[in-house]
Amino acid sequence: MKPEPSPESGPIRSVDRELLLAMRSGELFGIGELTEELSVTATAVRQRIERLLARGLIDREKVVAGRGRPTYRYRITEQGKRITAADSTELAEAMWQELLSIEDPELRNRMLRSVATRLGREYAAQLDENAPLEERMRVLSRLLKSRRVVSDVISAGELPVLDINACPYPTLADGSQDHSMCRLEEQVLSEALGKPVQLSQCRLDGDSCCQFSPAVNSSTANSPGDGTTAEVD
Amino acid sequence: MKPEPSPESGPIRSVDRELLLAMRSGELFGIGELTEELSVTATAVRQRIERLLARGLIDREKVVAGRGRPTYRYRITEQGKRITAADSTELAEAMWQELLSIEDPELRNRMLRSVATRLGREYAAQLDENAPLEERMRVLSRLLKSRRVVSDVISAGELPVLDINACPYPTLADGSQDHSMCRLEEQVLSEALGKPVQLSQCRLDGDSCCQFSPAVNSSTANSPGDGTTAEVD
Repeated sequence: MKPEPSPESGPIRSVDRELLLAMRSGELFGIGELTEELSVTATAVRQRIERLLARGLIDREKVVAGRGRPTYRYRITEQGKRITAADSTELAEAMWQELLSIEDPELRNRMLRSVATRLGREYAAQLDENAPLEERMRVLSRLLKSRRVVSDVISAGELPVLDINACPYPTLADGSQDHSMCRLEEQVLSEALGKPVQLSQCRLDGDSCCQFSPAVNSSTANSPGDGTTAEVD
Repeated sequence: MKPEPSPESGPIRSVDRELLLAMRSGELFGIGELTEELSVTATAVRQRIERLLARGLIDREKVVAGRGRPTYRYRITEQGKRITAADSTELAEAMWQELLSIEDPELRNRMLRSVATRLGREYAAQLDENAPLEERMRVLSRLLKSRRVVSDVISAGELPVLDINACPYPTLADGSQDHSMCRLEEQVLSEALGKPVQLSQCRLDGDSCCQFSPAVNSSTANSPGDGTTAEVD
């Protein structure tokens, strides 16, 4: 059984973010140090600590110090570091443009496929591989939501379909008829679900949304000679 | 004279984000369509429109329709698309790992330098190249802040120093002693300022913060044989 994504997924309060920023070095902090650093009361620090613990943005370590109630020291988690990280939109755009500008098509496709595999495996690790496809799609849809990707699972006919209402990375995919981002998503979702899916409708082609369906026959389902879509290595 | 970064840089309200999401297709929308789409009053839509216009997240087009007051139709801007985009942290991480895993050091360094140039030029375009270095650093520091990179400009001795308090991309740079991200930042800042800067203090080396100083002599200032730092092509 894999845990469900945390229900605490709303925007983080600015005071909580301030506390996280103070802990960004990755060291262990006691309540006293944080109280001093932020110039607020210990009660206020404790409230923020509780909320951040509940979200998994920090964790704690028990301090063994004689008798009495145990005390704790707190440390930012990887997830906490991500939340306090700089906005990586421009960095992602620059790297994406760089990858697309690789002239050798074989090298370019290999690198893009490898990026998709890295992303897809992160999702796959959070899905129950023994669950039916539709259930895996629903869990994936919730995971995508926590990354601000809005999607729905539609039971159309025999096979479920993942419907992505708006392009997750519009500044990467827009302004051109280039389908590289669509192919990347196809590979990410295939890797995540452990089953090839294909882009059956696409906004870039004038459809009203982007839909990913299980590949009926993955060797013929895609444009010939492309060789980069809906394959799961 | 270049415009200063907008003072409207706080978090966007959730109702405004909802309106932006409704406009994500990039088409022109009238107030009526948006009212219907969101099931709120025209007054509410107009208030959100005003705030989004002020932030440059949407723009408008006058509709010529006979006599009377002109009406407008609204469209999401590139900046607005970025704000509604999916969180690109994981995508950036996957591409970064992919770039670092390129075996050929020449190709790897060339691609990383090219990514830095792309990023640096975006900043450079927003700086006044005729202003003194310290002033350019201060404007750059404000631009960085809008991307959640916290920095200070310190006038230490004759030359100003840019002090980055916490690693902007901790999940990319942490967990290793790899300085690739430090070098990327060095190149980005050099390109942005139009003057080579070098990493004079680094948290990865045990310093208390990361400081970038103007390169005193860019041909000897860096580790020999590296050839990728503080160069501006």
